Amino acid sequence: MHPDTLSDYARLALTVGLNLQEGQPLLINASTDALALVRELVACAYDLGASSVIPVLHDPQSARIEMDHLREEYLDDVPPWFIEARVNAIKDGAAIISLADEDPNLLRGVEPDRLRRRQLAQMRQRQHYLELVGSHAVNWLIIGAASPGWARAVFPELDEKSAVEKLWSAIFNTVRLDLPDPEAAWKNHLERLQNRARALNEARLKTLHFKGPGTDLYVGLAKRHLWKSAVARAANGVRFVPNLPTEEVFTAPDPNRVEGVVRSTRPLNLSGTLIDGITARFEEGRVVEVSAESGREALEGLLASDAGAVRLGEVALVETPNPVYDAGFLFQNTLYDENASSHIAFGRAYPDTLGISEGSDAALAAAGGNVSMVHVDWMIGSPEVDVDGLNAAGERIPLMRAGRWVENAK
Amino acid sequence: MHPDTLSDYARLALTVGLNLQEGQPLLINASTDALALVRELVACAYDLGASSVIPVLHDPQSARIEMDHLREEYLDDVPPWFIEARVNAIKDGAAIISLADEDPNLLRGVEPDRLRRRQLAQMRQRQHYLELVGSHAVNWLIIGAASPGWARAVFPELDEKSAVEKLWSAIFNTVRLDLPDPEAAWKNHLERLQNRARALNEARLKTLHFKGPGTDLYVGLAKRHLWKSAVARAANGVRFVPNLPTEEVFTAPDPNRVEGVVRSTRPLNLSGTLIDGITARFEEGRVVEVSAESGREALEGLLASDAGAVRLGEVALVETPNPVYDAGFLFQNTLYDENASSHIAFGRAYPDTLGISEGSDAALAAAGGNVSMVHVDWMIGSPEVDVDGLNAAGERIPLMRAGRWVENAK
Repeated sequence: MHPDTLSDYARLALTVGLNLQEGQPLLINASTDALALVRELVACAYDLGASSVIPVLHDPQSARIEMDHLREEYLDDVPPWFIEARVNAIKDGAAIISLADEDPNLLRGVEPDRLRRRQLAQMRQRQHYLELVGSHAVNWLIIGAASPGWARAVFPELDEKSAVEKLWSAIFNTVRLDLPDPEAAWKNHLERLQNRARALNEARLKTLHFKGPGTDLYVGLAKRHLWKSAVARAANGVRFVPNLPTEEVFTAPDPNRVEGVVRSTRPLNLSGTLIDGITARFEEGRVVEVSAESGREALEGLLASDAGAVRLGEVALVETPNPVYDAGFLFQNTLYDENASSHIAFGRAYPDTLGISEGSDAALAAAGGNVSMVHVDWMIGSPEVDVDGLNAAGERIPLMRAGRWVENAK
Repeated sequence: MHPDTLSDYARLALTVGLNLQEGQPLLINASTDALALVRELVACAYDLGASSVIPVLHDPQSARIEMDHLREEYLDDVPPWFIEARVNAIKDGAAIISLADEDPNLLRGVEPDRLRRRQLAQMRQRQHYLELVGSHAVNWLIIGAASPGWARAVFPELDEKSAVEKLWSAIFNTVRLDLPDPEAAWKNHLERLQNRARALNEARLKTLHFKGPGTDLYVGLAKRHLWKSAVARAANGVRFVPNLPTEEVFTAPDPNRVEGVVRSTRPLNLSGTLIDGITARFEEGRVVEVSAESGREALEGLLASDAGAVRLGEVALVETPNPVYDAGFLFQNTLYDENASSHIAFGRAYPDTLGISEGSDAALAAAGGNVSMVHVDWMIGSPEVDVDGLNAAGERIPLMRAGRWVENAK
């Protein structure tokens, strides 16, 4: 890796992505595998005028050891102290960066019921924090970092050093650092995504129809649905881009109006289990039948998380090709894989796709969105899947053909 | 290092040292250089029945970057969120382990006034936490971990790998892991220290007199002083050993009754500045004159911290030889160096040496102890320094000769 690239990446994240403000505090949620990037972020954030930068570090190996050694009687005990600290930081206006670098195999082999019970307890404890982030109480950002464990999982045929370098290089390309003027490229890209969201909002669609091999799915959109793209606005007034990369326009389905069958176009990695070849049948918004070529048990565990886990909280359209799709491999990380093709998500809706700023269960339900503790994206788009929109008048509007927006398709 | 030694060390720390209880949560304060030990502690703590183990990790490099990049206008801003989390953990009964592994040169070259201002702001924010720990609200422990930066500072002539191995080996020896039965050795050692403290309490001394090359110092003891040694009792009833290693018996001076001159017998490392050859003159408890062969400016900065920094908060007697003294080098870390010879500390007194359990400023002052934000030990004992005790009747009782307790001396 060129020594400047990591600092260019940090700067892009803090400017184009987070839009860190002078005098703003910053939390950096990161694993101990990502220290090189953490240090670049700390230096750059202070150079940009941060009042305080706090790396909130976790050790993935310790998390695995916990799953292997924790007594069963304490599986549901997750102390609130440090998640409360993050909530208080947000209340005091701190921006949040989270570095995604998880080894998808970290928890492989942990007894599934034990893992599910622990993860539910952790999710319950984090719920208020995730609500604040999800409702854009402050400007926040997720970016990736190439950890050894993640790189080995993605490129098992390479030695660790080559795998890490190749993954970093792919990460940099997805955020357009390979282009001569990345900032200009982002300006252009964000404008295109925002125009797309605007056009979809103006079309006032009632339902989307996905049609392709194994897929014939109608996704009803929530009455108050809004199409959103890359740029969000935080309660503190700051405009920011919460994900780098980002290629999607997305909105809120009606949790009671999804009908038909859908087949996944890319595998989904869930806590170390690769779930491939998913086929799901929906009736009145609810999954009534599901199968998978591999990982079916993990998928069924996910769907059993709570009442909202069998309904949809997001539908997103992604044009291909794009820099993430062009990488040509499965990242096994949602931040990337969800930007490679159109997708839907089981679980919780995003408040801003329902035109509301509060992310509580009650607020989501009142606005007609799905309520759940989980939110798991899975890919249903490909160059073989077409997408149409249906409006209230029953008109059918072609949206995507062969993976491209209709006006871009040949 | 033998692969089992680190796990033996973790087990000794959690049993002989912390006395972790079944069902008790545990925080591990550690740097990212100490992950190997952190992981052993996590595994062992869960095996011993901890309900939750949380590594609270900090990155020393990020701390250095902060000092180099933080704008001056924010030097006094230290957010409370994560130190509040630690306070709340203590209030909920969590035990605390802190791993000492600081590179003594980490902050070398930072502009001294800038550093002092930042450290004072940090100390102010930590004060309540340190009060809770210092007053034994829960069982807690400090142990060392050989980080690369620390090992390089101690053994600059060795390559990093050899330096780290040599430092680990020295650390293990100081906690008697080189003996055939370390637990039995600790039982015996702790009994001897406790007997010593008991005998000193029974002697009802009013003043200590240190006499040696450059030293002729009378240290008045607080009226309500109690001699303490290795073993403490937490508010939750748990008996624990807060420092491994520990070789000292210690008590509270009368902050107004210290008279004479004293010369340091080992250098003191203060945030990267080695302060050597200290000579201090006390009148009515207060340092009225101080000099140092090196590092005088840093020493004067310390003494200017607050009104209590020029008075004594601790006096400790340490018999030599002992396993720490036997290491034969300066560790540049107080946990070790204070256990190599008798010492005094500028700054805050410990509540238990005044027979009280609350560690607030008001409680310390009411009990006749010194109040300050700082507590910095420096070594004044050696085989050339003798120590006598003076009781209320004016009798002079020889305590130490040539570094050894009188009844042990030949």
